[in-house]
Amino acid sequence: MSRYSFLNDYSVGTHPRILQALTTLNMEQQEGYGNDMYSNYAKELIRERINNLNSAIYFTSGGTQANLIIVSSALRPHESVIATNMGHITTRETGAIEATGHKINVINKACGKLNENDIIRVLEAYNFGPHVVKPRMIYISNSTEIGSIYKKNELKKLYRFTQANNLYLFMDGARLGAGLMANDSDLTLGDIAKYTDVFTIGGTKNGALIGEAIVINNDELKKDFPFHLKQKGAMLAKGRLLGIQFQELFKDNLYFDLARHANTMAMKLANGIVKNNYKFLTNSSTNLIFPILPNKHIDLLEKDFIFYRWKKIDDDNTALRLVTSWATEENKVDDFISHLK
Amino acid sequence: MSRYSFLNDYSVGTHPRILQALTTLNMEQQEGYGNDMYSNYAKELIRERINNLNSAIYFTSGGTQANLIIVSSALRPHESVIATNMGHITTRETGAIEATGHKINVINKACGKLNENDIIRVLEAYNFGPHVVKPRMIYISNSTEIGSIYKKNELKKLYRFTQANNLYLFMDGARLGAGLMANDSDLTLGDIAKYTDVFTIGGTKNGALIGEAIVINNDELKKDFPFHLKQKGAMLAKGRLLGIQFQELFKDNLYFDLARHANTMAMKLANGIVKNNYKFLTNSSTNLIFPILPNKHIDLLEKDFIFYRWKKIDDDNTALRLVTSWATEENKVDDFISHLK
Amino acid sequence: MSRYSFLNDYSVGTHPRILQALTTLNMEQQEGYGNDMYSNYAKELIRERINNLNSAIYFTSGGTQANLIIVSSALRPHESVIATNMGHITTRETGAIEATGHKINVINKACGKLNENDIIRVLEAYNFGPHVVKPRMIYISNSTEIGSIYKKNELKKLYRFTQANNLYLFMDGARLGAGLMANDSDLTLGDIAKYTDVFTIGGTKNGALIGEAIVINNDELKKDFPFHLKQKGAMLAKGRLLGIQFQELFKDNLYFDLARHANTMAMKLANGIVKNNYKFLTNSSTNLIFPILPNKHIDLLEKDFIFYRWKKIDDDNTALRLVTSWATEENKVDDFISHLK
Amino acid sequence: MSRYSFLNDYSVGTHPRILQALTTLNMEQQEGYGNDMYSNYAKELIRERINNLNSAIYFTSGGTQANLIIVSSALRPHESVIATNMGHITTRETGAIEATGHKINVINKACGKLNENDIIRVLEAYNFGPHVVKPRMIYISNSTEIGSIYKKNELKKLYRFTQANNLYLFMDGARLGAGLMANDSDLTLGDIAKYTDVFTIGGTKNGALIGEAIVINNDELKKDFPFHLKQKGAMLAKGRLLGIQFQELFKDNLYFDLARHANTMAMKLANGIVKNNYKFLTNSSTNLIFPILPNKHIDLLEKDFIFYRWKKIDDDNTALRLVTSWATEENKVDDFISHLK
Repeated sequence: MSRYSFLNDYSVGTHPRILQALTTLNMEQQEGYGNDMYSNYAKELIRERINNLNSAIYFTSGGTQANLIIVSSALRPHESVIATNMGHITTRETGAIEATGHKINVINKACGKLNENDIIRVLEAYNFGPHVVKPRMIYISNSTEIGSIYKKNELKKLYRFTQANNLYLFMDGARLGAGLMANDSDLTLGDIAKYTDVFTIGGTKNGALIGEAIVINNDELKKDFPFHLKQKGAMLAKGRLLGIQFQELFKDNLYFDLARHANTMAMKLANGIVKNNYKFLTNSSTNLIFPILPNKHIDLLEKDFIFYRWKKIDDDNTALRLVTSWATEENKVDDFISHLK
Repeated sequence: MSRYSFLNDYSVGTHPRILQALTTLNMEQQEGYGNDMYSNYAKELIRERINNLNSAIYFTSGGTQANLIIVSSALRPHESVIATNMGHITTRETGAIEATGHKINVINKACGKLNENDIIRVLEAYNFGPHVVKPRMIYISNSTEIGSIYKKNELKKLYRFTQANNLYLFMDGARLGAGLMANDSDLTLGDIAKYTDVFTIGGTKNGALIGEAIVINNDELKKDFPFHLKQKGAMLAKGRLLGIQFQELFKDNLYFDLARHANTMAMKLANGIVKNNYKFLTNSSTNLIFPILPNKHIDLLEKDFIFYRWKKIDDDNTALRLVTSWATEENKVDDFISHLK
Repeated sequence: MSRYSFLNDYSVGTHPRILQALTTLNMEQQEGYGNDMYSNYAKELIRERINNLNSAIYFTSGGTQANLIIVSSALRPHESVIATNMGHITTRETGAIEATGHKINVINKACGKLNENDIIRVLEAYNFGPHVVKPRMIYISNSTEIGSIYKKNELKKLYRFTQANNLYLFMDGARLGAGLMANDSDLTLGDIAKYTDVFTIGGTKNGALIGEAIVINNDELKKDFPFHLKQKGAMLAKGRLLGIQFQELFKDNLYFDLARHANTMAMKLANGIVKNNYKFLTNSSTNLIFPILPNKHIDLLEKDFIFYRWKKIDDDNTALRLVTSWATEENKVDDFISHLK
Repeated sequence: MSRYSFLNDYSVGTHPRILQALTTLNMEQQEGYGNDMYSNYAKELIRERINNLNSAIYFTSGGTQANLIIVSSALRPHESVIATNMGHITTRETGAIEATGHKINVINKACGKLNENDIIRVLEAYNFGPHVVKPRMIYISNSTEIGSIYKKNELKKLYRFTQANNLYLFMDGARLGAGLMANDSDLTLGDIAKYTDVFTIGGTKNGALIGEAIVINNDELKKDFPFHLKQKGAMLAKGRLLGIQFQELFKDNLYFDLARHANTMAMKLANGIVKNNYKFLTNSSTNLIFPILPNKHIDLLEKDFIFYRWKKIDDDNTALRLVTSWATEENKVDDFISHLK
């Protein structure tokens, strides 16, 4: 690729420290299937960081895999999961949830987030069982698929509501780093462990080669979880690959530093775009931004950059999706902005 | 681990050349989801090696994942797969095949291999549809779960039988390298592409960090295959991780050299055991051997080595499973043998 | 029930001629599993009536069962079915379709019907496989869940569109009798066989004790269909129960006469309601009507009649659902209307 | 059929009293989906008869349907059900259990019955989770698929074992009447309710038009059960059809009288065969018997009777399966025996 890519946050390999760790530990013999010492240590590190020594932690190679295992292991056959129309499980996973037998109850929300009133409306609409499915889990993303984030108070209220209504709250953290490191975020990893039943910590989109951590806080959801990992093909013989990466990401602040860089680059891009008097399709304080630009400018930008044309706004303007990552080079951001002028 | 492990062929990391390639290519921006240039090149290399430019090739992170996607993408809901009682899908995958809705028709075979007469017996027993499932795919492993291998003539006859009977032949190649490099093997990769509908080339157990290649030779099985990968959580955003590894394994003879080493170490172990007048549970010319040793010797061996106690033979003797790999150190093999004396 | 019920079209038993036939043929020994002579004869009668001797016909005991078998037997795991938000499979079957692994792509349509433009929009939105499911089947109902019907020209255009776009068209005929017998219907059973890939003929809601006929017109969908019936628990040992009923319904015009009566009673009800100057939530020419009445009148009506309060219109008015059937007594209709005054 | 059939116990319609009840109650308006007064009353009658007022009872139209719903509603995705190689779910239901995602752990037993030692062997073989499924339910049949029965002591011991090992015990009672009415049976319906977690009472093979009762004794298995019925297409809109039949069968001793007649006819057949010095493949005291006859006699018998040739014994002899029912005519039994001479 000779053009610089703002397509996504997974276009390069991994942070050099991770490659270094893989190299250093390469020839140590270890047990298989996630019982290696690196995986165990990485779990300890995360448990300390979330301030919950009772959480059960597992690593998977991808996000769709993590999502489908979490949902299918938690629900009985007649139970469903509520998500927004933008939810990754709703739109980008080729029916992975339905393939395990479960309906997704979709709520249209332009902001990409759910609140307790949204859930109430679904519960009322589904109040005539056994002729309809029984909503049992709430799926949210942080940051969301359009870059928005949950505030601590929002998450807390949502969790209390789910607790009071016999619902599980599941936060997809494929971009959890970006969500937590947003300037306007008041959430900590500990808050998320406190106010969800289960969540994921995305590695793939935040500097790992591959890998997501599944963190289960609710005892009910822990039971026999490894069976589900194995059955769905997610238990790697060489679990060490995932353990080493998460060990490296969490033995200090690397995970957070990488996410902060991605956000900083996105905000720099956004500021440059604002200064050129362009608007945005959504509010984002994270590493996904959606500027609305004139098509003729976009044509020119595409000579040097790659990105998604996200949505046609009118005949002359289109909203783009620009994504930054831990690896985004600041001078490329500067280039993009100077091209705008 | 202070003791040396003959537990399995996935106890260390990866061949240094793979780490080197990952490092060299690390910061190149690439497309996601397996559309990176490394994956494309790796596929080309494999197509050349199997001498079939029409085969469709995909990479997954693990063997259970590959197996369940191959089976579930190929079969209609009422169709089943035939396998031996030792088949990995039968016994070691937590019902992964059944979880996709399909029955496994199990054939008890001490040798771990299937022939056309075995299949005929199942077809006759299942000749009263629609009250029973319809066997449609044959699952075989090479090398098998007990180290045995298929000869060219056996595979050819089996494939011709399946062709004539509207059955798909699927070879699980989790240990394909060891199978092909066995001293008594007369099969080539090209033969396997010619005499199967679909097979896998295992990386995890032959020097990769993780990864299996799925090779689809039958056009019927190619249709929409990427949808199934995605739906089952197997399509990695950073498909480059798999592409780089297989590129490295197949750009010269690395894949085969690694397997040959594993076999050589196993044969050296076996010879040493024979010389000490012990027998074996099964015939194996590959990297899994099953010597029968006195329990009191085993107790002593366990002070310095790790391995599975596979099967109790009588009150005084037990069959072990010893596994060698691309990384097995020859001096450890020597140590093991000298302990035997 | 001392109050007269307009709740649904399945509140009483079966047409007396069906009971008579069951009694007459009761002690004849017959083959099981739908191979009895009554089932065979009933299939012949239906094939003649639809003017397609090549259609494959099967009987099931219920509509949800028929729907889930038709969809799951036709689709591969990554394929989905398009339906309206009112579709029975969307809202009233406890996730039966998803439980077989398939997503429903929902289109919101106040009229309860789909046209080719609706489908085009879904196909465009799902034009980025393999990251999304692949829509493959269109589910429509006739008459619909709100009493509306398809005109011949509408069905023909829809079918031509699906033919041109490699989609299957499936018509749920749980209320097919009412749909065909509507005063404004220009469709015949033959048209439906000509312009769908598969459809059902509902018995349960049109005078049978239980039973739906599945009529498969597309050869692709016929293959091994009985296996799917059996696997999903739909193949009755005493298939004769279904065969005798459909034989009786189709050996003359009974099926159509019963539907016509249901419609006539609904139209009489509707006319009486119109004359009292009330409006309707939807246009219906079939046996489901949705009048909007003042709550205080509804309270009084409920002393003598049972029906659903379908939808709150405002603080003072509610839309009811009134359903007539083959068994609705005309004097009860008269009573209802006179209560209105 | 001009020849008399001993093929199965579902070749004719239903006991005349059931037809009479259907006729008498035909025009009464009732609620749908099993909430009719007949279903409620039938459930009360069964609860009294089993001496357990807390059992939850549901009716389905067929046995495969009942089996798949019971198993899939009880098990989590990684759990399996243990059955014999003769179990109806193992061999005669087109993979219905696997289609809901669950493996069947098969135990080969010539007697068709399971005991605690059989289960122990499976539990030991499956003692290396998470790499294998977790056996959670035991499936037994009474009478079995080869006509054998459980004695009270056997059932009690098996139930105590399952209770002690966190396993569910499920008895398929498709032929429960025949099992209970066997001369050598010391079981009562009450015993079965006491010593199983869930069982079925078969109507189809004992005089009903169609219908099986599901009786759930374990509270864990009761939760949300109707959702599963609905999702799998088993909740009939006209549940009255099933309610009326079971009301009639259990309002006095009809259910038991019909089964006793079937057994009596089978024992008469068996005695006649014994007197002619022929042997049997299995011991049966119920309505399925498996005499071994010379092929030349069988050829002659087939001119006047229909039955299954069950199993080739040697070149000259074959085991037949002869089935009697509530409707078997004694003079036809006499005819069969006189043909033997």
